[in-house]
Amino acid sequence: MILVTGFEPFGAHTVNPSEGLAKAMDGRRFGACETRGAVLPVHHADATTRLAALLTETDPVAVVHLGLAAGRARVALERVAVNVMDYDEPDCTGFQASGEPIAPGGPAAYFATLPLVAILKALTAEGIPAYISNTAGTYLCNQTLYTTLHAVRHEPDPPRVGFIHVPLLPAMVAATGLEQPSMDLPLMLRAVEIALGVVASGAVLGQGGTPARWNEKGHA
Amino acid sequence: MILVTGFEPFGAHTVNPSEGLAKAMDGRRFGACETRGAVLPVHHADATTRLAALLTETDPVAVVHLGLAAGRARVALERVAVNVMDYDEPDCTGFQASGEPIAPGGPAAYFATLPLVAILKALTAEGIPAYISNTAGTYLCNQTLYTTLHAVRHEPDPPRVGFIHVPLLPAMVAATGLEQPSMDLPLMLRAVEIALGVVASGAVLGQGGTPARWNEKGHA
Amino acid sequence: MILVTGFEPFGAHTVNPSEGLAKAMDGRRFGACETRGAVLPVHHADATTRLAALLTETDPVAVVHLGLAAGRARVALERVAVNVMDYDEPDCTGFQASGEPIAPGGPAAYFATLPLVAILKALTAEGIPAYISNTAGTYLCNQTLYTTLHAVRHEPDPPRVGFIHVPLLPAMVAATGLEQPSMDLPLMLRAVEIALGVVASGAVLGQGGTPARWNEKGHA
Amino acid sequence: MILVTGFEPFGAHTVNPSEGLAKAMDGRRFGACETRGAVLPVHHADATTRLAALLTETDPVAVVHLGLAAGRARVALERVAVNVMDYDEPDCTGFQASGEPIAPGGPAAYFATLPLVAILKALTAEGIPAYISNTAGTYLCNQTLYTTLHAVRHEPDPPRVGFIHVPLLPAMVAATGLEQPSMDLPLMLRAVEIALGVVASGAVLGQGGTPARWNEKGHA
Repeated sequence: MILVTGFEPFGAHTVNPSEGLAKAMDGRRFGACETRGAVLPVHHADATTRLAALLTETDPVAVVHLGLAAGRARVALERVAVNVMDYDEPDCTGFQASGEPIAPGGPAAYFATLPLVAILKALTAEGIPAYISNTAGTYLCNQTLYTTLHAVRHEPDPPRVGFIHVPLLPAMVAATGLEQPSMDLPLMLRAVEIALGVVASGAVLGQGGTPARWNEKGHA
Repeated sequence: MILVTGFEPFGAHTVNPSEGLAKAMDGRRFGACETRGAVLPVHHADATTRLAALLTETDPVAVVHLGLAAGRARVALERVAVNVMDYDEPDCTGFQASGEPIAPGGPAAYFATLPLVAILKALTAEGIPAYISNTAGTYLCNQTLYTTLHAVRHEPDPPRVGFIHVPLLPAMVAATGLEQPSMDLPLMLRAVEIALGVVASGAVLGQGGTPARWNEKGHA
Repeated sequence: MILVTGFEPFGAHTVNPSEGLAKAMDGRRFGACETRGAVLPVHHADATTRLAALLTETDPVAVVHLGLAAGRARVALERVAVNVMDYDEPDCTGFQASGEPIAPGGPAAYFATLPLVAILKALTAEGIPAYISNTAGTYLCNQTLYTTLHAVRHEPDPPRVGFIHVPLLPAMVAATGLEQPSMDLPLMLRAVEIALGVVASGAVLGQGGTPARWNEKGHA
Repeated sequence: MILVTGFEPFGAHTVNPSEGLAKAMDGRRFGACETRGAVLPVHHADATTRLAALLTETDPVAVVHLGLAAGRARVALERVAVNVMDYDEPDCTGFQASGEPIAPGGPAAYFATLPLVAILKALTAEGIPAYISNTAGTYLCNQTLYTTLHAVRHEPDPPRVGFIHVPLLPAMVAATGLEQPSMDLPLMLRAVEIALGVVASGAVLGQGGTPARWNEKGHA
């Protein structure tokens, strides 16, 4: 099972493309892997609770979190999650963190464990603008990536975990009247499918993976 | 007849979305108007010659020029063409103008005569990022818009004339590896179709149009 | 006499660097030319009235309008003024034009008549980021440039006229907390001095100037 | 002693403002702290060697690394250094890392230990555009910050360590002819002085500092 999550709309946004993308991935299959799509609340505490339940429930071989990054022009494969919450705007409860750790006493950061270079190559080969990003911000997106990586840190055979940011949808930009980059939903969908294909394929095994489990559970 | 033009690839670009868009519009129909799609060379002199022939041949009620604007995030409806060639890069013959007039003795500028506000509203309503741009640059795009408006200036019943810039295609951005906005071809196609629909509709008649001819030739 | 104008603060801005720059130029001398610095209101009608009075009062050999262009990173030498008012935000009276002409029946545009290429070269040689801009926008800045060029169009020996946009001041950016380019006031001052030096010098005479008057009044 | 480092020019840049800033800080005094300014080579291995020697030699209470970030508009106070080298361009030896760790087996990241929030407030209060950045990139700048934080990790009383990125100088932008933000050297100098003032002041002690040593060595 590959767990794919998106987020609900937040702040001034009435839609969030990552929500639709996650739902569209629910019940799909990539290679030997089924996918479960789920939507997280933009809530500093409930997102974590929901995430923990999903991890227990799905026991995934890989987790691909999706989120919205307004202002970015390309699909962003996040390299790292840092142990800080420093919100630019409040979450949906009105809570606005300002510099506190996600996990007190936890390490400063975790690297994502998805095969980012392989995903980037596959996206680029398909003509989809993408890059490896060095910051997932300090809002819920980063928090979710950190939380998952922290949650699985002691597992003997942890899932691959990563976060992919997508740009604004064209209609979101049209509504603002501002000069901002966008990406259309069909292209985002292809990007997520390509990424999940790489994650599900045996090609990822050489990049720090845990072949035993992948053979047993992911690719049996 | 509505004449729709695009450009050949130029400079470092191996494709030019405006070329495909113009070809895709060839032989289409919007309201009572057929469309003729044609591709112009990125050649300071031949573009003008080809354009003159097309105007004579098609006797259009409207001319919609299309071109590529790398770096822009939205569909740009050009408001004005200025009487200057000041090329950032050479054309396909190696010629690089530096400040000379397009039409010596011609006026400093012409305003596009397409119903830009109506097109912008229609695009925005359909969720396509667009804006009214105040500069078409000083390369072949501006030159083509100026040339057409200059060519028809003395006609008793001139066609509506305008220029629409489109962003880079996603695959063009993917190939560069740079953080640059893009727009996918299906969205561009919808944008052009929406614009041509507005141009072809009676809705444009109130905005400085020439109802007689539009009734006779465009909407009979 | 060279007339140098700036603008009052407007909209959300509590300062306007062009105001300080214009004041700093008042009573200066470049070559044989004295400079008069004046500040215009951000008022669609009063700016024009004040400008007309200043032109009559100073009978300038050159007019250099200065204004603020938030978001631009470099000193912008405006190439052209277009005959349209299409305000992004209201002026200081609350009036917001939406597409009407500045001068009904006037030409679509006028080219600035300052020696832009020579000014650009001088600024670049001094290490000041600058460029020739193809749009002064459609707010008061463009309006002022158009108005002056329109006012002097029938003079037998019209002054050279142009518009220079400057970026935000660093303190303005610091106050917003946004990632926006800025330029420090001393650098702006040097830019204006260099530009006025070029304007005042005989070097400008070869670029469409009117040598007689420049000899008589500007450089006697 | 506060150690301040800059870098030599690299790649296409013929100057590096961080070099001049570091030299200008050599032999200065902020509060009770003298400053030592030093310039590091843009060399993947020699930078580390030189840095180790400087740390031994100066036994600093604080280390402020400075570097150039082309494209950024504001002074960037780096929050975190990650354990990866993924160079966009080769270093001065032609070596181009592609994803390898800085310290094999080292933690994924270290947080900078300078009082970033206090520095940001002080800079903003003085009208200098600044922000807390979440990525120092994956080139020599990030590597240097990581290396220093890694080197002092076992010290009982480690120095405060951080990295400040500065924008391009105006003359660097003027030379490229591109629309890129810049900051003038006097403003950068003020920014560094303000930051060092905050670092040297007792105000920093409450933010995870080690008061004993600061009292003994930094503020005796």
